[in-house]
Amino acid sequence: MSAANFKNCRNIMITGASRGLGLQMVESLATSGNSPAKIIAAARNPSGAQQLQKLAEKYSNIHIITLDVISQESIERAAQEVDVLLQEEGLNCLINNAGINVVANFETVTAEKMLENFHVNSVAPLMITKAVLPLLRRAARQGGPGMGIHRAAVINMTSLLGSVELNWGDRANNFKWYPYRTSKSALNMVSRCMAVDLVEDGILCMMLHPGWVRTDMGGPEAPLSAEDSISSVLAVIGGLTEKDHGSFLHYTGEPLPW
Amino acid sequence: MSAANFKNCRNIMITGASRGLGLQMVESLATSGNSPAKIIAAARNPSGAQQLQKLAEKYSNIHIITLDVISQESIERAAQEVDVLLQEEGLNCLINNAGINVVANFETVTAEKMLENFHVNSVAPLMITKAVLPLLRRAARQGGPGMGIHRAAVINMTSLLGSVELNWGDRANNFKWYPYRTSKSALNMVSRCMAVDLVEDGILCMMLHPGWVRTDMGGPEAPLSAEDSISSVLAVIGGLTEKDHGSFLHYTGEPLPW
Repeated sequence: MSAANFKNCRNIMITGASRGLGLQMVESLATSGNSPAKIIAAARNPSGAQQLQKLAEKYSNIHIITLDVISQESIERAAQEVDVLLQEEGLNCLINNAGINVVANFETVTAEKMLENFHVNSVAPLMITKAVLPLLRRAARQGGPGMGIHRAAVINMTSLLGSVELNWGDRANNFKWYPYRTSKSALNMVSRCMAVDLVEDGILCMMLHPGWVRTDMGGPEAPLSAEDSISSVLAVIGGLTEKDHGSFLHYTGEPLPW
Repeated sequence: MSAANFKNCRNIMITGASRGLGLQMVESLATSGNSPAKIIAAARNPSGAQQLQKLAEKYSNIHIITLDVISQESIERAAQEVDVLLQEEGLNCLINNAGINVVANFETVTAEKMLENFHVNSVAPLMITKAVLPLLRRAARQGGPGMGIHRAAVINMTSLLGSVELNWGDRANNFKWYPYRTSKSALNMVSRCMAVDLVEDGILCMMLHPGWVRTDMGGPEAPLSAEDSISSVLAVIGGLTEKDHGSFLHYTGEPLPW
């Protein structure tokens, strides 16, 4: 059971929940025997997210909220909604999963493409975490010793393509995606900075690569199904402890180089 | 002699040349016994750059051009000017040195601050390199075997603060600068992507940390003078070979972790 360790995670929030890996996280958690009390599924346009709507009709612990991750106004409104939903319990786990791939190589890349991908993939997770920080702190204070989702954790969904070290040789030639790679390297630094600042509140922060998955973003040739990826991802998240604080892990649990 | 190996570098371009490390690079190269034939000093506002103007009056191989690194129009106009100056010789060395530090910690950081620092420090070096690529290629074709400033090189001035690995423990607590650290990590990925793409043209690309220097940015407490930093920086650049392609080096020449 992939979500076994989620029995100690009362409330979780997932961004980018309308499709792909975010939707799969919501579904896998909702159908788990250890389903969290509240699964907050954030999507930019919930009215267009039919699969998510159907899931929420079936599982009453799914709460859909509207969140446009590049709008500070939307982030603050969403944080208020989450506050009303969770109240004194707070938020045990924030998964910053929303992301885009603005495909561009050396010839086609522009400043605008770089900035757009950076805003969504690197800056938004920072601004969202800041907005729900009081809720993460509230949960962290109630969860006992150690670090993990029994207290509070921020999981940033990053990518192996954000590893500067691995962007070399044959691997580099496969995906010459300047905006995406750069945004994920930047997200790794943002995450590491947050890990430094969140430790005093007992809030775990780490980065996770979900694998190359058959989603709209990953395409049909990807080797992993969303189910298999998220089964591993949730197992890793469920087992996180203080030793994983500030780390960059593969969905199999192995550490990745920066 | 710090610039000894520059005897094989005919033409060099330095951005952010109005003050700090950029100005020091121009001065150290101009006063060297092996001064390049043309030193192109790019500044956003040359009319306000009095020290640079004085240097250019004294040394006729200094050519000042206007370059606002976040304006694509300005970048393209500058590239045309450089083309007129260098013609068939091309450009042997581009030093992307212009940079800013938009100071902000976890509490004070905003999306706007992140985007501003990212644009200047991470995106601009990419767009400038793209704009002068024909000139770099021209020089690379003429310079003989191997890689280095005898052919063509792109040097991105980055920072140890952009190392995700080193952003931990005591080091991390000293400089909680979200926009700056993130922009330099992002620049490392941009540089690495460019190294992958430029290798087929024989153009070297690497990242260099100049040390913590007493400039307007570094402040008065920094341990290194601009003269000493740039003496080492130019020695490292002068000695670069194909083994340094895609690397991240300290001004002493030691490799740094990503």
